[in-house]
Amino acid sequence: MIAGSGLIETLVPRIERVVGRLPRRVFVLTSAPIWALWGHSVQQSFRDAPIVLFLEPGEKYKTLASVERLLRQMAQAGGDRGSLLIAFGGGIVGDVGGFLAAIYMRGIPYVQVPTTFLAQVDSSVGGKTGVNLPEGKNLVGSFNHPLAVFADIGVLATLPDQELRAGLMESVKAGIIRDRALVRFMEAHAQDVLGRDPKALEKVIAASIRMKAGVVNKDERESGLRMILNLGHTVGHALEQATGYKALLHGEAVAWGMVATLHLARKRGTISSQQFARLESLIHLYGPLPALKLRAAKVIAATGGDKKNVGGVRRFVLPIGIGDAGVVEDVTPAELEAAVGYILAQAGERGSRQVS
Amino acid sequence: MIAGSGLIETLVPRIERVVGRLPRRVFVLTSAPIWALWGHSVQQSFRDAPIVLFLEPGEKYKTLASVERLLRQMAQAGGDRGSLLIAFGGGIVGDVGGFLAAIYMRGIPYVQVPTTFLAQVDSSVGGKTGVNLPEGKNLVGSFNHPLAVFADIGVLATLPDQELRAGLMESVKAGIIRDRALVRFMEAHAQDVLGRDPKALEKVIAASIRMKAGVVNKDERESGLRMILNLGHTVGHALEQATGYKALLHGEAVAWGMVATLHLARKRGTISSQQFARLESLIHLYGPLPALKLRAAKVIAATGGDKKNVGGVRRFVLPIGIGDAGVVEDVTPAELEAAVGYILAQAGERGSRQVS
Repeated sequence: MIAGSGLIETLVPRIERVVGRLPRRVFVLTSAPIWALWGHSVQQSFRDAPIVLFLEPGEKYKTLASVERLLRQMAQAGGDRGSLLIAFGGGIVGDVGGFLAAIYMRGIPYVQVPTTFLAQVDSSVGGKTGVNLPEGKNLVGSFNHPLAVFADIGVLATLPDQELRAGLMESVKAGIIRDRALVRFMEAHAQDVLGRDPKALEKVIAASIRMKAGVVNKDERESGLRMILNLGHTVGHALEQATGYKALLHGEAVAWGMVATLHLARKRGTISSQQFARLESLIHLYGPLPALKLRAAKVIAATGGDKKNVGGVRRFVLPIGIGDAGVVEDVTPAELEAAVGYILAQAGERGSRQVS
Repeated sequence: MIAGSGLIETLVPRIERVVGRLPRRVFVLTSAPIWALWGHSVQQSFRDAPIVLFLEPGEKYKTLASVERLLRQMAQAGGDRGSLLIAFGGGIVGDVGGFLAAIYMRGIPYVQVPTTFLAQVDSSVGGKTGVNLPEGKNLVGSFNHPLAVFADIGVLATLPDQELRAGLMESVKAGIIRDRALVRFMEAHAQDVLGRDPKALEKVIAASIRMKAGVVNKDERESGLRMILNLGHTVGHALEQATGYKALLHGEAVAWGMVATLHLARKRGTISSQQFARLESLIHLYGPLPALKLRAAKVIAATGGDKKNVGGVRRFVLPIGIGDAGVVEDVTPAELEAAVGYILAQAGERGSRQVS
């Protein structure tokens, strides 16, 4: 993992430091909007132009149908087992690219070049790759680690504000579950961070990646500890599913999911009322979060299909104070209703654009 | 790997010896014809009936479309990360089942119960799983090892004769590349083997599996040694592709591919004329091989897209005497034409049913 500026203009020598000489066929998976902005910079360091594959932007194209189309394009272009794939884009490009590399000819090497804040702190650590099914998000995939990750902070200059704010929710999460100092920094320096001050952004990204890498390295297969990275995801996924994966950014859904979880944690006493107020404020500081026009029953029903449920048990990650978290399996329907009811009421009062 | 009789009637206790207690949801992937014959026996040892998923028989259903349908059925049936998948069928069921298990929720445990001779000796060792693309066979997949393999010789009783003979080509291959004693046994006991004498079958299966496991264990990722398992596959795959994956059984295609390879090896002098005659006779002893009505140019063109070609080089596995083999990368177009020409001529003279 290398984070810094000016990385994409010097990609080839950086990759060759890892793989030796580039193979005959190099594929770049990207999306048209990001390629229009940065494709020229990426191509600067290539002697022979790479084969560029496009994925339509948006969660609705994170499907096996897209995967099949792209695999066929790779085969038609003569891709072989020695070919290299570079995933150049946001989280979806990274997830699909990593999955393509995992299954094309039973595995080819790949490199991640994440271009959103979220992808830089999230998708590029842990080796999770995959696509959605109509039945739920990320139900298909592999654990497949890239040979290298290059996180170029310069690319964030063109990131829409809403996406930056949604991405920063990953860092808020990192702080809540493992890094009290990061919580303090994000409270004190919200203006610098949201103003894209490079120093401030680099600090937040580095701390977030460090936290995630630390957790993931201790628990590769997500059997135990790694679960805590799913703080806010049980309700967050349910919100995404209930809104058809279209209206909410992942970080926005997780943000509301974290508020629901904080509510549950306060009720159970694993955080105090003061801690609740402080963390809820932090989340809204990096908002605004969207308003939600949803029935509670629909959201609650959608929590049933979560991937974290082994043997049908509904698992929940709960913060313990600030900087620690644990997993519980005994959340009652009443607790879940109360937590979901709380965020739906809050979303009515504090939410910005309306989402249904 | 357990090979023997009466295994499928006692599957649950055998699996539980490996995984502990069965999980809540157990999926069995199978095909309707094999399930009609043996489903009742398989279900005997289950307390709760498993969820049975069907794959239509035939190479044309070994597709990502089938994979997507099956993954969705698993999600709809509430499959989670703790669920177990049992692949009960021939090689295609094994390949698709192993791939489903590799990518459903980024991996669930699975068990192979191969029901054809070929699958018992071939697909159940090495962890190769996957499906075809229109551009070529097995272009998509994973390396994914089952928790256990149960090869029940009793199930072979209902295997069609043509499939048994095609499967035995794997054993012929095993003998040629690594096991001179197996070649001698198969020469001397062809009647017993083809007559399905359990002792003879078990001996051939055990020797074939032992050979393959020995090679694969030394070379998990098919970077070097494991290549020799592809004896006959460069031309074999080309024959399958040129006939649209419909007319030839895999073993039949590989058998003609091996004859082509023997021709090439004799010309290069890595086997003698006597060895050529002996091995060619052995292949036909376990025939009859189908006649091929194909243009040589079409077959030769189809050798270009082989997965074994890293960086565009056409690799060929050549026998060295009887019981050894090596990989060459410098086969000339003229040599390839001569080898393909030889089998097309032979197939005209010696072939049985005609395939085009």
